[in-house]
Amino acid sequence: MEVIAGTIASPKGFYADGIHCGLKKTKVDLGWIVSEVPANAAAVFTTNQVQAAPIQVTKEKMASGQLQGVIVNAGNANACTGAQGYEDAQHMAIAAADTLGLAPDQIAVASTGIIGRQMPMEKVTTGISQLKKAGDPQAFQKAILTTDLTEKSIVIQSQIGGQTVTMAGCAKGSGMIHPNMATMLAFVTTDAAISTELLQKLLRELTEVTFNQITVDGDTSTNDMVLVFANGLAQPSEIQENTADYDLFKKMFHAVLTALAKEIAQDGEGATKLIEANTIGAVTDEAARMISKTIVGSPLVKTALFGKDPNWGRILCAVGYSGQPIDPNALTISLAGTVVFQSGKPVDFDEDMMQEALAQSKVEIQVALAEGSGQGMAWGCDLTYDYVKINALYHT
Amino acid sequence: MEVIAGTIASPKGFYADGIHCGLKKTKVDLGWIVSEVPANAAAVFTTNQVQAAPIQVTKEKMASGQLQGVIVNAGNANACTGAQGYEDAQHMAIAAADTLGLAPDQIAVASTGIIGRQMPMEKVTTGISQLKKAGDPQAFQKAILTTDLTEKSIVIQSQIGGQTVTMAGCAKGSGMIHPNMATMLAFVTTDAAISTELLQKLLRELTEVTFNQITVDGDTSTNDMVLVFANGLAQPSEIQENTADYDLFKKMFHAVLTALAKEIAQDGEGATKLIEANTIGAVTDEAARMISKTIVGSPLVKTALFGKDPNWGRILCAVGYSGQPIDPNALTISLAGTVVFQSGKPVDFDEDMMQEALAQSKVEIQVALAEGSGQGMAWGCDLTYDYVKINALYHT
Repeated sequence: MEVIAGTIASPKGFYADGIHCGLKKTKVDLGWIVSEVPANAAAVFTTNQVQAAPIQVTKEKMASGQLQGVIVNAGNANACTGAQGYEDAQHMAIAAADTLGLAPDQIAVASTGIIGRQMPMEKVTTGISQLKKAGDPQAFQKAILTTDLTEKSIVIQSQIGGQTVTMAGCAKGSGMIHPNMATMLAFVTTDAAISTELLQKLLRELTEVTFNQITVDGDTSTNDMVLVFANGLAQPSEIQENTADYDLFKKMFHAVLTALAKEIAQDGEGATKLIEANTIGAVTDEAARMISKTIVGSPLVKTALFGKDPNWGRILCAVGYSGQPIDPNALTISLAGTVVFQSGKPVDFDEDMMQEALAQSKVEIQVALAEGSGQGMAWGCDLTYDYVKINALYHT
Repeated sequence: MEVIAGTIASPKGFYADGIHCGLKKTKVDLGWIVSEVPANAAAVFTTNQVQAAPIQVTKEKMASGQLQGVIVNAGNANACTGAQGYEDAQHMAIAAADTLGLAPDQIAVASTGIIGRQMPMEKVTTGISQLKKAGDPQAFQKAILTTDLTEKSIVIQSQIGGQTVTMAGCAKGSGMIHPNMATMLAFVTTDAAISTELLQKLLRELTEVTFNQITVDGDTSTNDMVLVFANGLAQPSEIQENTADYDLFKKMFHAVLTALAKEIAQDGEGATKLIEANTIGAVTDEAARMISKTIVGSPLVKTALFGKDPNWGRILCAVGYSGQPIDPNALTISLAGTVVFQSGKPVDFDEDMMQEALAQSKVEIQVALAEGSGQGMAWGCDLTYDYVKINALYHT
């Protein structure tokens, strides 16, 4: 398995394009991913009860288990827009299908941007008519961004069942949620051959340990969507469960989702560093994930690390209110590779070395418990002046 | 029932004092509250599994249902301090009891300040020996503060059963938690006559709708404590449940706890304004409280209101992920008295008037649902540059 250069269109039979249609001032803001042939498709969506129109529309499109593309815009979330918003999202799929000569039920829809504004459909449909099937995949990867500072993408190749299988992912999101700049979106393409059922099962399982383990501000958006296409063009027959091929595919899928999730956390609004928490020895994996996520979600841990402050008391406090069983007297915390608290007692450490370690772009926190063998990681970022600035000064 | 001028020592037979013993640089940092006679006592404590030594010690002291005082320090939380910390907390009670000529099991202990440092017991015991029984109650109210900018206290009088009953409360806390500057503490004194059981029952019930409904940063501290003393000196016989007197007492108690809770939220670290959310029409009161608390806890709502941004999309989004049943199409949001979203659709409003309303020191958010008759409020504050500054620049 190796990471290669490429784009979301690198797997066999995938295309993508992006253009500026006028939803943002000057940047690209509309794009699509298209598969040469119908692809088995899987998706997970936000758990927010307020769900944007494109979420509703794409859920309906998933019924057949296959899709041939997705039309995506940034700059407007099409959320809280009522019956008109639902019609507009449907119309985006129809316009994309028309341009491509496909059936509208083969095209998913995703939107990200401000909540509560109707879509300027004239701009959008004009834009869609100008998209090219074999266009500029880099432009697609840019077209889905909002407050993001970096493009988030990865391409991995692996030998599965004697064939070279490629999987590509790209994502946007500068926080679990930005109700102005709504949300996180991720798209994954692969030329692997795998059933819709297995793909969906794997996506659910892996989302739990990747996207569901990142947080920037604890808010859950109205537009979150992870959408996966497997068009099978690299393989003569479908990958079956409980085989070596399945394990290889799962490993590749896990690597792609983990990379995108970490990139989103690292590019959290205003962030200067990625925070990775790894809890071991918890009662269950789920408990370990919850403890790790509580740590990276604590505003006080986040501000301390912004200030390069080795404030382990705040980490211990977060572990204590995670809701999971812990024994403070059988608990070890290491921060940036140095043990700072062991078996219920503070441990002295070199202040200068710690300062230097906390100045890096990634800080690792490890919590070792003695409750069981559960392990789980989570990713977040520091809380800075710029987070407040971005979210206080942007006016609706 | 009326609010009167006074201090925590205003109810009959209560005394308080505060002095500087050296835990803080120059400010008063040690104090006590003492009752002339044994008082029925009730308390609620942090739910954090990591509990500071004074929490453990005070829990033990509560066994008899009576207390005659509490010794309190700021500047050191005595949390994560192991067996030595537990001994030190016990020793604080012994030293206070010695000075007062009382039994140590009559004296509770509360601490607030930095986590993970042993108490400098020489300073503390010297300080305790200098406290006076009938000292300076204002100094007590100052001695419990950490990053707080304001003293938080209230005194209410009511006629109950033909007698004038007084209840006083004071609190510290500039957030639900400050693991550096640990925690929120509140003390209530009253000369009402009421059994320990009823007092504890009422405290639990009212804490749910007052202190448990405030949030500054979502963190739950290791040192939180609310401690209530009722010495009965104003009344010849105990208040009984299910009587008019009970209702009057409950009303007074509720008013004292609400006032202290709101003062803590308003003085949240870095805050420029109090945010009050009121949800009506929820499935249950508990659901309504959860929705209100989710709103005031959302970093994106908090930053928007710091920026005077009427961003109702962020409020609606928070309602949507509160975990409570809601129908976005039968939901009305009003912000600072103006309806901004009604029955699933945005409502136009006067931008200038809204800007002015959002510049006030208190902003009210009302959410009306059509799910049932549940009602609940919560209080928080805006998230500002100063919150980040206070928590990033304070170094352990």
